[in-house]
Amino acid sequence: MPAPEIASLAAELPGGAVVTDPDIVAAYRQDRAADPDAGTPLAVVRPTCTEDVQATLRWATRHRIAVVPRGMGTGLSGGATAVDGGIVLSTEKMRGITVDPVTRTAVAQPGLLNSEVKNAVAAHGLWYPPDPSSFEICSIGGNIATNAGGLCCVKYGVTTDYVLGLQVVLADGTAVRLGGPRLKDVAGLSLTKLFVGSEGALGVITEVTLRLLPPQPRACTVVATFGSVRAACEAVSTVTARIRPAMLEFMDAVAINAVEDKLKMGLDRTAVAMLVATSDERGAAGTEDAEFMAAAFTEHGAREVFSTSDPEEGAAFVAARRFAIPAVEAKGSLLLEDVGVPLAALADLVAGIEALAAERDLMISVIAHAGDGNTHPLIVYDADDPEMTRRAAQAFGDIMDMAVELGGTITGEHGVGRLKKPWLAGYLGPEAMELNRRIKQALDPDGILNPGAII
Amino acid sequence: MPAPEIASLAAELPGGAVVTDPDIVAAYRQDRAADPDAGTPLAVVRPTCTEDVQATLRWATRHRIAVVPRGMGTGLSGGATAVDGGIVLSTEKMRGITVDPVTRTAVAQPGLLNSEVKNAVAAHGLWYPPDPSSFEICSIGGNIATNAGGLCCVKYGVTTDYVLGLQVVLADGTAVRLGGPRLKDVAGLSLTKLFVGSEGALGVITEVTLRLLPPQPRACTVVATFGSVRAACEAVSTVTARIRPAMLEFMDAVAINAVEDKLKMGLDRTAVAMLVATSDERGAAGTEDAEFMAAAFTEHGAREVFSTSDPEEGAAFVAARRFAIPAVEAKGSLLLEDVGVPLAALADLVAGIEALAAERDLMISVIAHAGDGNTHPLIVYDADDPEMTRRAAQAFGDIMDMAVELGGTITGEHGVGRLKKPWLAGYLGPEAMELNRRIKQALDPDGILNPGAII
Repeated sequence: MPAPEIASLAAELPGGAVVTDPDIVAAYRQDRAADPDAGTPLAVVRPTCTEDVQATLRWATRHRIAVVPRGMGTGLSGGATAVDGGIVLSTEKMRGITVDPVTRTAVAQPGLLNSEVKNAVAAHGLWYPPDPSSFEICSIGGNIATNAGGLCCVKYGVTTDYVLGLQVVLADGTAVRLGGPRLKDVAGLSLTKLFVGSEGALGVITEVTLRLLPPQPRACTVVATFGSVRAACEAVSTVTARIRPAMLEFMDAVAINAVEDKLKMGLDRTAVAMLVATSDERGAAGTEDAEFMAAAFTEHGAREVFSTSDPEEGAAFVAARRFAIPAVEAKGSLLLEDVGVPLAALADLVAGIEALAAERDLMISVIAHAGDGNTHPLIVYDADDPEMTRRAAQAFGDIMDMAVELGGTITGEHGVGRLKKPWLAGYLGPEAMELNRRIKQALDPDGILNPGAII
Repeated sequence: MPAPEIASLAAELPGGAVVTDPDIVAAYRQDRAADPDAGTPLAVVRPTCTEDVQATLRWATRHRIAVVPRGMGTGLSGGATAVDGGIVLSTEKMRGITVDPVTRTAVAQPGLLNSEVKNAVAAHGLWYPPDPSSFEICSIGGNIATNAGGLCCVKYGVTTDYVLGLQVVLADGTAVRLGGPRLKDVAGLSLTKLFVGSEGALGVITEVTLRLLPPQPRACTVVATFGSVRAACEAVSTVTARIRPAMLEFMDAVAINAVEDKLKMGLDRTAVAMLVATSDERGAAGTEDAEFMAAAFTEHGAREVFSTSDPEEGAAFVAARRFAIPAVEAKGSLLLEDVGVPLAALADLVAGIEALAAERDLMISVIAHAGDGNTHPLIVYDADDPEMTRRAAQAFGDIMDMAVELGGTITGEHGVGRLKKPWLAGYLGPEAMELNRRIKQALDPDGILNPGAII
């Protein structure tokens, strides 16, 4: 039996936008972080336009009801965990896009998948670079809310680098346009950038203007295996100090073997680390950079180095790297970490995690966007074993502590959400934390938006 | 006779940091915008470290005295115009820099010149791309405060794209560290980006962590003259829709002739428009892009197209473009505009400015970072002629109105400061303006920092 407030919202919005069917609502309680503390919302609201988002937020402010904004629910930090008595505002039905090849921009609604944005702009001969591993299932709105990263960041940067403008709806229902299809615009404070990565805590993104690039040139791929993690990490630094690879990914022994178990592509099961690198510099420069990387890997003691300019051959190794998470997931339940460190500390981080795995008697696989120091330690545990589950949870926190100790961050690209919130203040320090709170307070004084997440 | 409050600040800071000598103070009243309404400050404070900036701001908050932060005073919008009874806080003596070639980052204090940053990192084989025309005289702190642009933005983006971290001192004297040498970091709100472009209204930048690139490859240069502005602008769109030039600059007939008057390098005085473009793609790709641009210029009716892969020959044309402002300045006093439009509207903007010049009986020269739609109309007037000065001031506003009408911005890279403040609310609209005010209020509730600028 829906609360009477919900009836008033349902009356305001077009038919079907407000869903209270418990079976449907249940599917919106968690995102992929599977937060065990997820609440049960009053309703799921699926607006199709900015005006409906405004009506929803005005209603929520009037009734002091919490709103958890949600894209496609692929977040890994519990940024879209539902709260008891609140609503989940899903942008999944806002799916428009227009591409302007002259200004090389696109205006998209938030519910479109990242891959759909890529495809729509590719039809105009253009490229939207950001490529989180989940690009086929995650929404562009969620990408912006988390400032999502991916594999190409080492050369092409993260989501914020491609956001020229936004329309956002504030907690009180006010719709605001920020920025737009202008490649340079310094009029007023940098509010567009403030909303990127704000995890639904400052406003709901209802439209985005994206900067696009000409198509990515064909890449050369270099794959190398190492007998030592430190040697592989040092090879990474040698590469990035000199050239700009388009991808520079790391897999440890656990990941290599888990992938090989599934894909049977002939990976060296005895290798301790593997690097997958590409260069998309055009023509001879690409070959030159591939040769530079191969030489750097050899110089740092790589056991085997394989280079190819064949796109399909190269894609197989990139796919293997992308497949590492599901492959490791076959071993048990996963706690997926996302810590990042300055490049010089990468080897120490991986070594520290190895030691931690031994100490806690856990399997922890490390895969990494090595070129930008962003790692994804995968903590494997048996969810039916409470004692092991406890050890895994401890390791999750230990890894964040270790990253911060090494000058790193508690989250490189997934966001803070609810899972990492207990570590945020320790990482940022009291002054920066207070600054976060002041901004939140200024924009959402009643705390309607995504309460419990980030701040 | 300095106010008694000043004596208390001078007692707190090391000898010489607080300057009250009227002759020295007078030199800090204006920046290069030469705001005629500049006030006379109580003192100039020249701290050498973050702690002294903190002491200054704590003192200012205690006594409710306005603080105008200032880099090297090269701003063109009056962002560093002094206010009566306030102080000017100049960061010119904060000049440290350390470069980390492994993480490809540098940590710099704000008083270093942009060119000094470029040189310091070049000594480690690295490159800091942002290149405002004033790079030899402007400070890196000022660049960050204005989110400065330049010539390379069309390919390499603006200052914010290279800022990984900041230390800022808030109005109440609190020092806050935001971000750092991590290429990806999404822990907490995007506050680093919020301070970039905040024009000294939210805090004083005392340290910056910059992202660096490997050295820029040698560029090929293509220069073309046109008999029509529209044809030149259409050629620009044809280029940027397909490739990524490293520079794509525009000069109109007035600028061409003014430069030729001074440099006598054989520019075609009968040309209506000139484009200077470069490609720094490596090897054959650079030649290929130069050929593509030359062909695009020819296809759009260029009268003359000249290509060179000789760096010195190319540099001469880039220098000619950089010399356009001083060359036009020889014709009279200048009001330097900075409006930007979506690329598709560039030709309409230039045509509109031409018509405006005729209507107002003024000489207005248009130079532009054409590839990103950012133009610098130069309004020439005789400062001793009050009627002409009035017409020039009207044209200054008319050009902003015209840009906004065409979907553009009132400032692409110079900032709002005090000169453009009257146009900000009209451009942003009431909702975004209110959001700017809320952020300002949250971070500087007493309005100590740069009162009268931006918000």
